[in-house]
Amino acid sequence: MAATATAQATDMRPAFPPPDVSARPVDRSAWIAAFRHVRDETERRAAPLSPEDQQIQSMPDASPTKWHRAHTTWFFEQFLLKDRAHGYRIFDERFLYLFNSYYVAAGPRAPRVSRGLVTRPTCEEVAAYRDHVDGAVCTLIETAPDAALAEVLAILEIGLHHEQQHQELLLTDILHAFAQNPLSPAYDSGWRFPAPPAGGTLWLDGGIVPIGHAGGGFSFDNELPRHEVLLQPVALDRALVTNGEWLDFMQDGGYARPELWLSDGWATAQTEGWEAPGYWRQAGDGVWSGMTLAGLKAIDPALPVTHVSYYEADAFARWAGCDLPTEAEWEAAARAGLDGAFGHVWQWTRSSYSAYPGYRPVPGALGEYNGKFMVNQFVLRGSSVATPAGHSRATYRNFFYPHQRWQFTGLRLSHGRA
Amino acid sequence: MAATATAQATDMRPAFPPPDVSARPVDRSAWIAAFRHVRDETERRAAPLSPEDQQIQSMPDASPTKWHRAHTTWFFEQFLLKDRAHGYRIFDERFLYLFNSYYVAAGPRAPRVSRGLVTRPTCEEVAAYRDHVDGAVCTLIETAPDAALAEVLAILEIGLHHEQQHQELLLTDILHAFAQNPLSPAYDSGWRFPAPPAGGTLWLDGGIVPIGHAGGGFSFDNELPRHEVLLQPVALDRALVTNGEWLDFMQDGGYARPELWLSDGWATAQTEGWEAPGYWRQAGDGVWSGMTLAGLKAIDPALPVTHVSYYEADAFARWAGCDLPTEAEWEAAARAGLDGAFGHVWQWTRSSYSAYPGYRPVPGALGEYNGKFMVNQFVLRGSSVATPAGHSRATYRNFFYPHQRWQFTGLRLSHGRA
Amino acid sequence: MAATATAQATDMRPAFPPPDVSARPVDRSAWIAAFRHVRDETERRAAPLSPEDQQIQSMPDASPTKWHRAHTTWFFEQFLLKDRAHGYRIFDERFLYLFNSYYVAAGPRAPRVSRGLVTRPTCEEVAAYRDHVDGAVCTLIETAPDAALAEVLAILEIGLHHEQQHQELLLTDILHAFAQNPLSPAYDSGWRFPAPPAGGTLWLDGGIVPIGHAGGGFSFDNELPRHEVLLQPVALDRALVTNGEWLDFMQDGGYARPELWLSDGWATAQTEGWEAPGYWRQAGDGVWSGMTLAGLKAIDPALPVTHVSYYEADAFARWAGCDLPTEAEWEAAARAGLDGAFGHVWQWTRSSYSAYPGYRPVPGALGEYNGKFMVNQFVLRGSSVATPAGHSRATYRNFFYPHQRWQFTGLRLSHGRA
Amino acid sequence: MAATATAQATDMRPAFPPPDVSARPVDRSAWIAAFRHVRDETERRAAPLSPEDQQIQSMPDASPTKWHRAHTTWFFEQFLLKDRAHGYRIFDERFLYLFNSYYVAAGPRAPRVSRGLVTRPTCEEVAAYRDHVDGAVCTLIETAPDAALAEVLAILEIGLHHEQQHQELLLTDILHAFAQNPLSPAYDSGWRFPAPPAGGTLWLDGGIVPIGHAGGGFSFDNELPRHEVLLQPVALDRALVTNGEWLDFMQDGGYARPELWLSDGWATAQTEGWEAPGYWRQAGDGVWSGMTLAGLKAIDPALPVTHVSYYEADAFARWAGCDLPTEAEWEAAARAGLDGAFGHVWQWTRSSYSAYPGYRPVPGALGEYNGKFMVNQFVLRGSSVATPAGHSRATYRNFFYPHQRWQFTGLRLSHGRA
Repeated sequence: MAATATAQATDMRPAFPPPDVSARPVDRSAWIAAFRHVRDETERRAAPLSPEDQQIQSMPDASPTKWHRAHTTWFFEQFLLKDRAHGYRIFDERFLYLFNSYYVAAGPRAPRVSRGLVTRPTCEEVAAYRDHVDGAVCTLIETAPDAALAEVLAILEIGLHHEQQHQELLLTDILHAFAQNPLSPAYDSGWRFPAPPAGGTLWLDGGIVPIGHAGGGFSFDNELPRHEVLLQPVALDRALVTNGEWLDFMQDGGYARPELWLSDGWATAQTEGWEAPGYWRQAGDGVWSGMTLAGLKAIDPALPVTHVSYYEADAFARWAGCDLPTEAEWEAAARAGLDGAFGHVWQWTRSSYSAYPGYRPVPGALGEYNGKFMVNQFVLRGSSVATPAGHSRATYRNFFYPHQRWQFTGLRLSHGRA
Repeated sequence: MAATATAQATDMRPAFPPPDVSARPVDRSAWIAAFRHVRDETERRAAPLSPEDQQIQSMPDASPTKWHRAHTTWFFEQFLLKDRAHGYRIFDERFLYLFNSYYVAAGPRAPRVSRGLVTRPTCEEVAAYRDHVDGAVCTLIETAPDAALAEVLAILEIGLHHEQQHQELLLTDILHAFAQNPLSPAYDSGWRFPAPPAGGTLWLDGGIVPIGHAGGGFSFDNELPRHEVLLQPVALDRALVTNGEWLDFMQDGGYARPELWLSDGWATAQTEGWEAPGYWRQAGDGVWSGMTLAGLKAIDPALPVTHVSYYEADAFARWAGCDLPTEAEWEAAARAGLDGAFGHVWQWTRSSYSAYPGYRPVPGALGEYNGKFMVNQFVLRGSSVATPAGHSRATYRNFFYPHQRWQFTGLRLSHGRA
Repeated sequence: MAATATAQATDMRPAFPPPDVSARPVDRSAWIAAFRHVRDETERRAAPLSPEDQQIQSMPDASPTKWHRAHTTWFFEQFLLKDRAHGYRIFDERFLYLFNSYYVAAGPRAPRVSRGLVTRPTCEEVAAYRDHVDGAVCTLIETAPDAALAEVLAILEIGLHHEQQHQELLLTDILHAFAQNPLSPAYDSGWRFPAPPAGGTLWLDGGIVPIGHAGGGFSFDNELPRHEVLLQPVALDRALVTNGEWLDFMQDGGYARPELWLSDGWATAQTEGWEAPGYWRQAGDGVWSGMTLAGLKAIDPALPVTHVSYYEADAFARWAGCDLPTEAEWEAAARAGLDGAFGHVWQWTRSSYSAYPGYRPVPGALGEYNGKFMVNQFVLRGSSVATPAGHSRATYRNFFYPHQRWQFTGLRLSHGRA
Repeated sequence: MAATATAQATDMRPAFPPPDVSARPVDRSAWIAAFRHVRDETERRAAPLSPEDQQIQSMPDASPTKWHRAHTTWFFEQFLLKDRAHGYRIFDERFLYLFNSYYVAAGPRAPRVSRGLVTRPTCEEVAAYRDHVDGAVCTLIETAPDAALAEVLAILEIGLHHEQQHQELLLTDILHAFAQNPLSPAYDSGWRFPAPPAGGTLWLDGGIVPIGHAGGGFSFDNELPRHEVLLQPVALDRALVTNGEWLDFMQDGGYARPELWLSDGWATAQTEGWEAPGYWRQAGDGVWSGMTLAGLKAIDPALPVTHVSYYEADAFARWAGCDLPTEAEWEAAARAGLDGAFGHVWQWTRSSYSAYPGYRPVPGALGEYNGKFMVNQFVLRGSSVATPAGHSRATYRNFFYPHQRWQFTGLRLSHGRA
């Protein structure tokens, strides 16, 4: 990952993000470069993995690497090439069914839980699928009539951001898979977390503030419309909660005191047998280690805690006598300059994931992208060590269920409301 | 129920709600009257039910009538009498365990799912338990030293509102039980819904408005602290969505069009086989009837739809091109005079149930009353036909999971945001 | 139960079993007496139970007392009265559906798992149902034309034996229900086990022996046809395995040594957390007690162990270096005079429950009585303390799944084969 | 498979089975040849499969190809090399844990359901493991002192037969995996069933016959001890039940008539939605095809039906007015010359899988091989098209649960008992 982060610094100007979709004249070669850049990054992330590694789905929430590679390709074939690329030949009609994830409007699809059972096409055949589609997309960018370009680029751009989301999932999913293996394999033995952000407090005065994407550059539909909210005065910690603080919580009975927990959280913790963050294991001598992309490593108390669920984050905040920030507080703080906002861990907020006032999904199949998931999940803000470069912004709304913890999810505290 | 609603009109002044807890001098007899009134209402609601009826728990979310009668009694014994009534004799030590619902701090408790398995104590023994506790509570009210009264009345008051909540559950739980019986028994053959509210639109200008309980009279802790929120301009329908409108939704494929549903909602509807609101059944001739407290009755298109989940309410709103109101919008509208706000059906809002800014639970075991449930649920506002008199207010926050529909839950629409 | 066992000794000749169905002339009054005797015994067993007790179904395998009372009545209405009693009025058409257990050919039926949800009809109404049917059956016995009598008596007789089976289940099912109640209620505080059989060994020489019912008196179809089998020489213990011996097994790690167990048995024991026979509980001081029909009682080491599954019986036998007898060995031994064969505990054999060579079920709905269960179960021989008088015989084949242990099930050992 | 069947005919004398273990002097090279032959056959069967194919476990009952290759290797390492091969170096200590299947006495083992999650070691690494062990086994055979040879050969021989069992599973497991893939991949497009056996009837007179292995050549412990049983006169069909006959059964409502089914079988069929044998699919035009090792093929009515469960076989026999034979009848018939006994489909018998009289497992970990599975399963006799050459014999007892049908399981009928 460290290598990944620097890979795109070889040129003066990174290939991603591409120019604004509305910029005229259209710089077609810049778009092709952005496309190639994102597509290559997926392959770079898959490269250390054997065909066996790429095959498996270690739980229903995760997907095989091979599937990520094929599904992101399907996205361009389904939404961009099929109806817009003149003379395009569908690579394999059956893939339209096999690699649709959840787009009901795009037709029938294979059940999610059986993604790991599809051994054919093999990794090699998926590579050929990617090549086929990549060529056609580049040709489309080069040759699309000017009048069609606006729509082509709009879809292309969402496809690139979509693929970047799967790049992050590819890593979190393989980490989950490797964590099931008694041999604790390493994805990349040189992988490590960046240095953590420093401490201190960021004060917000409260009052009416604008929230949401303001135009200029890409955003997903769930970041819109920009609107005003009324904030209370609040202070946010500049530092992320660390492993060391989490060990204090554990030693103070954090996982054994129901009064610290939400009722549903306590029930989940009991059912799942949680006694520590995800992937943590205690050796016979009481020392904790954790499964990482570099394999099993001793817990470093200075690093941000990660692989904690919303339920755990909420219990920790209650134990600490603090709160989790709301997503509006987080966004206002990010604008005011929040340390470690991006590139460490996704940060749980105490905001349920719901529509901004006046939100309407985009028409058509791509309207299923975000809106239909606006229930039962919580918003996370920032980005993580696994998020690809160019994919972070202050208005970004990530979301997961409160029991999930296979992502790089952590927290920062807010307080001072009294 | 119609009888119930009028029963307390025989006096000039209803026994419930009692005087303000801070009123001095304390009118002890008025508090005794309020206590007797609430306790009697529970028994009046249980009276039509045989010992067999009172025994069963027809699903994990529901509880037996007998348990409701015993648990509300336990509440007074545990939180009021045990430590505060001089010389009080515990009726049966084992009931402290048997009839605790979820208060972890109050000690161990029988598992929720086995409530229906406790055939002993019998209904008669529970009646004796109620008599024993009732006598002791009245004696405590009469004889408590003035210095102790404030605390006694504060606990007493929460106990009364707690019992009123169980009075509503008693009816919804027995309706669920009877709905499982192929004989479709009637709880009260004379029971009927009140006339529905009229139509029209209530406009709100938006801006900063206060939300939450203001002091004066009882509220639960989740209605506090009162605070300000920024509203967008919005219009709320004065009428509740009716059975007739719901039939239109059904005939337009409402239960067969995934694009109308949240993803989790669609999955639930498929798993549960939902094709209509809860308790609706279609005869061979296509005519719909519904299980009610008066037994199986033809669906009346003019009445408010009820026994719909949040998922269904949300899908209906999307189909109608409208929204569900937020709880703040609902509360502002209720202050502005909203028709049919109370006494028909609880109204789903699109607000997740969460803490108001600065919320802190009360210390001690009663602090478990509300706060620990603030996740994964949605707020309902208003009150229903099953809510006892004196239990409704504009700031009241009811909450259920989005898949639940055995309560009297319906909806009203909001719109005009564009 | 002790009372029950002696109740019928007040007359010189017990009312049950009735005369042979083929005896001529038919002694109609003796048949009425037998019918009354069996029907009364059911009511005598239900008498100590409150309506609440009679309502519940504490697990899918068990049924409510009220249901046993109604279902045994339905059996006579469905198979005897409906088509054969001139002018008979069905008590309630809906009961034909409600109280059918599993007779597919007799029409649709309520799902087994919801038996405990049917609070109406009440116990009182079921009593009226019993009276109605009892009167009609007695009238039919008195007035049936001679030509119809053979068939009437054949069905009547199977109905009586069927009801006796439910009398045993009534006790084992309520014991299971009471065992779920933290108050450990007693069904009959005077209930106790009979003195256990003495020790010693019964030797069988082996060779060809006849197995199955020989004619004369009642048998179920699964005891037919009588046929020959080849036995190996074998010795059977005259004593039943006792609680004391079971404690030895436990202290020797019986529940912690997988090598003693069948693979499926070990998996079941782990999943269910078995560490002792069913209903055994260990106090803080290590002393074992067990839930009985007289409530919670100290374990008596001299009594036969009961509430053990086949899996446990098999593991015990392996631990003891012995076998469980086959059902043919047991039957041959019973003919040779086996101590404690009847009236203590049902005795697991190592024979899977299957059809005797040439077995064919009787035609019609009653053909579902036994044959369709001939898979996945094991044969138990003898009878238990809960078996009503007149219901035991050497050829009787009881059967349960190998994981079940809520019946009065124990074991005796065989050995000496070497 | 056709290729497989003829592969070993290149020499005059097949390498397998090896000489009798008691033959002296020991022909070490013949044993090495037999070992090589069996090990090569496993690799030959795995050869058409990609690393992705070899990785997955498509249901808990099945195992990945890679696991079969590793586990059969582990068997030799664990039971033969570890304690007996002087100077043997364990290939990887962790494999002793990873590739133990169910041998409790051999130490802890990875849970069965997670076999498909172990992507490392890769297929290549497993190939190296096989080479390592193969070399050491051959060296051991060559160099073991004469005094140790008897034990070495006894374990070696059971290891070879064990590996042959996994060779069959390898094919049935990959067929199950491919059947989950919407693309219906072919394992070997040239694979086909052998010509079916001809019709006619084989009569057995009944009387006392010997059953079980007689000595001379290999047998598993469950084929012992040889003992006598008493047979009734019976006739067995020489032909196996065909797909055409099964279509008749289906068209006569075979899957829709509960009276034809065992109660547990009917429940399974309803839960699983069975309407045809395993892997059968009906096209829009009503034509049936079935998934085979050659991919999806039209059903050939002349071939033996396969992939039917015991429940289905039992229902078919009842529908046909016949029986399934007992395993003793089958064995006696096989000795009398039964057509198509071997190499087509395993044939369900109506005998529960249980111990022969006097059966005792062998001491040590290998004693877990058969005995602990002797409950809840039914015996199948013969062998199938997937059984490797040299692995069939008349006394062989295969066993599966009555609901399982992913093996090549079919049936033949018996009758004429009347």
